[in-house]
Amino acid sequence: MAELRREPVTRMWVVVTNENPKGPSDYLPFKPPYRVQEPQGPCAFCPGNEEMTPHETLSLGRDGEKWSVRVIPNKFPFFHIEGDFDRRPEGMYDVMEAIGAHEIVVETPGHDQSLATMEPKQIEKILQAYRERLIDLEKDQRFQQFLILKNHPGVFNRHPHSHILAMPVIPERMDEEIRGTLDYYQRKERCIFCDILKEEISMKKRVILETVHFLIFSPFASRYPFETWIVPKAHRPDFHRITEEETKDLSAGIQSLFYSFLKLLSDPPYSLTFHTSPVRNRFHRPEYHWHIETRLRIGLREGFEWGTGFFVNPTPPEDAARFLREVE
Amino acid sequence: MAELRREPVTRMWVVVTNENPKGPSDYLPFKPPYRVQEPQGPCAFCPGNEEMTPHETLSLGRDGEKWSVRVIPNKFPFFHIEGDFDRRPEGMYDVMEAIGAHEIVVETPGHDQSLATMEPKQIEKILQAYRERLIDLEKDQRFQQFLILKNHPGVFNRHPHSHILAMPVIPERMDEEIRGTLDYYQRKERCIFCDILKEEISMKKRVILETVHFLIFSPFASRYPFETWIVPKAHRPDFHRITEEETKDLSAGIQSLFYSFLKLLSDPPYSLTFHTSPVRNRFHRPEYHWHIETRLRIGLREGFEWGTGFFVNPTPPEDAARFLREVE
Repeated sequence: MAELRREPVTRMWVVVTNENPKGPSDYLPFKPPYRVQEPQGPCAFCPGNEEMTPHETLSLGRDGEKWSVRVIPNKFPFFHIEGDFDRRPEGMYDVMEAIGAHEIVVETPGHDQSLATMEPKQIEKILQAYRERLIDLEKDQRFQQFLILKNHPGVFNRHPHSHILAMPVIPERMDEEIRGTLDYYQRKERCIFCDILKEEISMKKRVILETVHFLIFSPFASRYPFETWIVPKAHRPDFHRITEEETKDLSAGIQSLFYSFLKLLSDPPYSLTFHTSPVRNRFHRPEYHWHIETRLRIGLREGFEWGTGFFVNPTPPEDAARFLREVE
Repeated sequence: MAELRREPVTRMWVVVTNENPKGPSDYLPFKPPYRVQEPQGPCAFCPGNEEMTPHETLSLGRDGEKWSVRVIPNKFPFFHIEGDFDRRPEGMYDVMEAIGAHEIVVETPGHDQSLATMEPKQIEKILQAYRERLIDLEKDQRFQQFLILKNHPGVFNRHPHSHILAMPVIPERMDEEIRGTLDYYQRKERCIFCDILKEEISMKKRVILETVHFLIFSPFASRYPFETWIVPKAHRPDFHRITEEETKDLSAGIQSLFYSFLKLLSDPPYSLTFHTSPVRNRFHRPEYHWHIETRLRIGLREGFEWGTGFFVNPTPPEDAARFLREVE
């Protein structure tokens, strides 16, 4: 179980888990010498080991296989689905239970696959699983914000998987983006993401790939080397209202982008996240424009970024875009 | 040289360097397989190798040694000292030159020392060097914010060193803290940090160490395992107005805290940063309360934190404080 505690100065919510481990290093996600250990034993996400995981919330089949994409509750969730918020003070501080959902999408039966090597058809299935789960989770009125997140390679298991989170508060980063979008809309009566698309298409130098429905580019103020945004050309607030035709187009674009990463940078570690409007209730923001952000996970300068919220990027996005564009 | 580019949605400034490397992986701080390489050859920060670094901006001696603490300009600065801001539009975007200062404090002649193993006397010298450099840098009217940052071990050189940065803009994280401090002051006419000190001293359970002038504790909404704050009991906006007596007291507290980390957690990697008011001019904030924040650098969940600004901490701060308090 976990609590949401509010940092009193900046008013950011923090999830603090409160299991009851025995010693100080039981708390640490990595043990000394502080490197990730490859897990021992059979992979819980491989076909045949389904009984090692909780029962699935969704399973998509294909071509006589038992399953092609499988969604399961996370055994170690940041947010738990049962219970009440129990909002309460603790001295001068604010605390509530971390209610929400945290599911794992097993993206393929293939343990050694990746977005770079999968068929676009398989990526379509993954996007379909995301979409169906969000549509289902949106019925729960306790949630304000969804997040879809993927790490490559996975931190504790290399079998390709991603996370779907439904959160009871709007996280700081999304809140900042939404405020920025609304400010811009108030000044100009235009969507800032729609304007960025027009600017990038006309300037060309930061474009990696343009598909029928999406623009894939290195953003002007890239915070990370080879940071890449995938933005739908049509103004839509919610990822999970994507059409089948757009899904197909997006899958081909994703496969092409990550193939370029693989070829250009020798299979770098990366993270990928979907930014989408708060859910369809009083929190929904029709002014928001959903998109995907991706960055390399190479962890330099994290001390500086942590201390300041200030990013230092050694790779000019114009050069990153050119290199990625030129991959055969 | 580097540019400051403004991310148009959230309006965060990002430093984008624009050297001219030859190939894509020349841009990457770590090369495939994306692990830090121990530097080869002699250490530029060791005594006898002073000619490998730029000329020092400050050198403090002790007991017949050539130097005891040495401050030098960073050879690879995030911000450069010469030039004009040249604020300009680029299409719909905002850009200016990354003007500022970036110095390295070589903390001791001893290559294998650390804050846990140094004499408190040596830590006093380091704090004195920080203070003297900030007082000098404050004369430059182009700077708005200072940052002192230390990574242990250093990313590219294990010889104990820290960074002093003088920045021409107030970074996002500081801006949020200042806004939080001002909001609280407007509601209560009290400093939020002063209130936190009173709360923590009376509740005791998150206190690690109380010295004459400082409280060392695990904050209520710790974002990282074993996150620790060191806060002066007297309300002071600026670190660099610290007195000699406070410096001595703080040095003993720092040595004790990092000795506890060493003993309890087998020399974990950590970052440490000084949060201090914007500089003494129109940006200065007398309502702010300077302090030091430190966290373990174990990099889990960075994808989630990056995607959301939402932190997940597996270590309840009450337990962290108890463990650290009980180190002999």
